[in-house]
Parts: sequence; structure tokens; C-alpha cells
Amino acid sequence: MNQQRYKHQITIPFQDIDAAGIVFFAHLFRYAHESYEQFMSAHDHSLADILKNGEYLLPLVHAEADYRQPLRHNEAITIELSVKKLGESSFTLQYHCLDNTEKVRAVIETVHVTLDASQKRPMPIPDSLCTILTS
Amino acid sequence: MNQQRYKHQITIPFQDIDAAGIVFFAHLFRYAHESYEQFMSAHDHSLADILKNGEYLLPLVHAEADYRQPLRHNEAITIELSVKKLGESSFTLQYHCLDNTEKVRAVIETVHVTLDASQKRPMPIPDSLCTILTS
Amino acid sequence: MNQQRYKHQITIPFQDIDAAGIVFFAHLFRYAHESYEQFMSAHDHSLADILKNGEYLLPLVHAEADYRQPLRHNEAITIELSVKKLGESSFTLQYHCLDNTEKVRAVIETVHVTLDASQKRPMPIPDSLCTILTS
Amino acid sequence: MNQQRYKHQITIPFQDIDAAGIVFFAHLFRYAHESYEQFMSAHDHSLADILKNGEYLLPLVHAEADYRQPLRHNEAITIELSVKKLGESSFTLQYHCLDNTEKVRAVIETVHVTLDASQKRPMPIPDSLCTILTS
Repeated sequence: MNQQRYKHQITIPFQDIDAAGIVFFAHLFRYAHESYEQFMSAHDHSLADILKNGEYLLPLVHAEADYRQPLRHNEAITIELSVKKLGESSFTLQYHCLDNTEKVRAVIETVHVTLDASQKRPMPIPDSLCTILTS
Repeated sequence: MNQQRYKHQITIPFQDIDAAGIVFFAHLFRYAHESYEQFMSAHDHSLADILKNGEYLLPLVHAEADYRQPLRHNEAITIELSVKKLGESSFTLQYHCLDNTEKVRAVIETVHVTLDASQKRPMPIPDSLCTILTS
Repeated sequence: MNQQRYKHQITIPFQDIDAAGIVFFAHLFRYAHESYEQFMSAHDHSLADILKNGEYLLPLVHAEADYRQPLRHNEAITIELSVKKLGESSFTLQYHCLDNTEKVRAVIETVHVTLDASQKRPMPIPDSLCTILTS
Repeated sequence: MNQQRYKHQITIPFQDIDAAGIVFFAHLFRYAHESYEQFMSAHDHSLADILKNGEYLLPLVHAEADYRQPLRHNEAITIELSVKKLGESSFTLQYHCLDNTEKVRAVIETVHVTLDASQKRPMPIPDSLCTILTS
């Protein structure tokens, strides 16, 4: 797959901490999705436009995360998005969460299906999207 | 206004705590809105039905909260919803957050406008909604 | 493993919907964790008490979800929690999200490690916790 | 008060939309707090450091918002933070949410008290913080 990685920077905000004093695990899925949304926008395929065009949908059918070391308040984190797998009508994105020492603190994956918006059935990944994912 | 108060119970969950070890202030607006949504559903006016019917909208135009004492993880809280003010085409809801000693820990208010859904203009509060708010 | 399932009811709230009109995928991890927290409290092992006691921690090291059919606003959902696997110093919880026709809409898993709180090293699952998980 | 405004840019993300298709009102309080946190960090007073130092706390005692026009998915928004009022042991921050036509879409305020961390009593705003707020 492509070797390029899209990078998204975040600083862990005050409110994402839980009662144990670390980032609540579910927030990492949000960070991942935000980097996915920004990646798509950066390649002229904003999710807003895709929804507006009404040609296809990209529902998320699977998500998983491995948490190697807890994230803490105010840490500077880089999310590196890469395409792990490109199927006929689905694709898998992988996100590495790195701290400022380049240590991988968590790895997340999301699997998206390309659905024909009118028939709600899987369809081949549209060419323009395929170009983005293999660039 | 009406003296009846709709009561909604919550236990402060693990993930609503912030880096200072207390409930992040914005979550109380969510608790308030959840009690509003349940109040409406309990009176056969679910927000989902109102949106589906497409007759009127109830946009929130103002919200405020006074925080008297921080809320903590696992506290049992009761949100008491009451109607503070009923205008021509708007209404103000008030929410008291009480702990298990009946102490008021926070007071929240939300102001909602009744909008004609097609013209997006204020309209008188529909009768059936008025009945709920004055019951 | 144990056949008993702990059941947690939710109604999908107004604010958990995303720009595509369905529940944002990451919220299901929150629903799962809330049912886990309530399960623990129901068995006299609230997460708040565990944190306060300071004997052990239960960090989440893996989470995953399969989304079979999107959830929508105001749907009544039951989360059924069961213990999928009990290891030496870790356990896997599984959560089935069922709608009001008993159809499984999503399946979630979380893996928790039992850590000695002072040394931050894996330790055998404490007996009292083991009893809960196998009851 | 100071005329300088600290600016924080956001693009409304996919998951902040509610069942009515607009940004859920409570998220604006989060946007405001994030701009406050970044403002403090930009002036070498990160909330994380303040918490670590343990000298004083800055609990939020009041928050309010006026919503003039709903925010939508993928809109580019600028939050302009300014100091509205500086008291003896409290300060009021104001946040204007502007769209890309400079139109004010919402105005938010938060009131913070400076508390002596050990005695949990109001104390005068520390000099270094006062300098930031009046710069």
C-alpha cells in the first residue's frame, strides 16, 4: 500500500481525561476519525461534499484499537494515517498515535465500505477515491 | 408556572471527569438536554417525532449554567426540570442538579424558540406543546 | 464462561447522531463502557471504589467493534454484557447491542488488564473480581 | 479591557452534528474551553502546569451562550477570545464564533474564579495571570 502518511497534530485537551487521570479510550477513535476527515478534505473529498453529492456512502463497519501506553493531558500527539488495505468495495485505514519522542502509544484501525447511496449496496471504490487512497 | 418537576436520575460516569478531577462543565448542558428529551418523550412529544413531522422546530437560542459545587465521579444526581417562563413563541426551561442530600449543585437554563419549519420563522407555541409545558 | 448477561438499556439521544444521520461509531464504545461501569457497580465493585482503594487498576488495552446496522436517533437499545474470556491477568468483555426486535446491531469487545497499582505490573485477577466475572 | 483577541480556528467535525442536522449546542462550550486552554498555553500558563503546580485552581462558576445562527458540518469557524471583565478574584472570558464571512454566529461567556488550591478559598488573581489577561 501507499507509503505516504497523512499527519494530524493534536494536543490532548483538558476534557478528554477520565476518572483514572488518562485519556478515555473511546476518544482515540474520535481523534482517528478527525484525522480521516481532514485527510479526505485535504484531498478535495470532504465528507460533507460526499454526503451532499449523494452518490456513495462510506459507512464504518469495523473499528479497533490497541492501547500501548496511556495518553495524558496536554501531551502533543501526532496521528499518522495510512491505508492498510484496499479491497474491492472496502478499505482499511490505520492510525498510529505517536508522542513527541516518536513512540507509538496506540494503533487504531477503521474499515469502511463503499455503498451505493440509492440502493444501499456495496459498490466498487470510486476511481477518484481510489486515487486518493493509493497516492 | 407549573409546579411539577420532571425528574431524571444519572450517575456521573467515568468518562465525564476532566483533568481537574471533576465533571467538565459542558457535560451538564448535555445532562440537561437529555432530561429535556426524556421529558418530551414521556409526554408523547419525542424530539424524533417532532423532527419527523416537520411542522415546527425548537432551536435552542440561549443556554446558561451556574456551578455551585463541582460534581464528582460516581455521584448520584437528580436533574429536576421545570418550566421557568412561557412566552409567545419561546419557552425557558430550568434544571436543578441535586445530589443525594437534596443540595443544589448547579442550575441550568435553556431557551427554546418555536419555529415554523418551512418558513423558519417564529410561530406561537403549538397548543399540544403548550399543554405539556403548563401541565 | 458465564452464561448470565448483564443488561443495560439506553435510548439513543439527540446529540449522538452524526452528519450522516446515524450514531457516530465511537459512541458505541462509550455505551459499552457505561454498561461495564454499571455492571461493576451492581456487583459492589464500582470503578470509583477501585480507584479509591488504590490496590489495582484495570486499564483497557484493546477495544473493537463490528457495526452490522446503523443505530438511529431515539431507538431503544439493550446492551448485553458478557465475559468472553478470563485470562491470568486480563479479561475480555463482550457487548451485544440489540434493538427492540432482538436483532444484534453491533458487537463490541474490550480487553482489560489487572495491574498492580503501585508497581504498574500485571497481577492475577483479584479473587473478588474473579467471582463477579464468573458468576 | 484588552483589545487583543486570541484566535482559534476550527472546522466543524462530522460527529458534532445532532439529529436536527446542526451543531449540538453544548459543543460550543467545548470549543470555547479549547480556545481558552490554547490561549493559556500560548501564554506559558498551560492548564496542565497550573494543575501540577498546585498553587491555585480556576474553577468555572458560570457559563452562557447566545446562539444566533446554527453552525453546520464542515464550516470553518474562528473563535475569538477576549477578556470581558477582570474582578478581584474572578475573570470573565468572552468568545465570539465567527464564520468565514466574519458574521458572529454565537457568543459565549465563561466566568472563572481564582481559588487558593490548599484552602479552596477565593484569592486575588495571581500577578502573572493578571498580566496575561490584560496584555
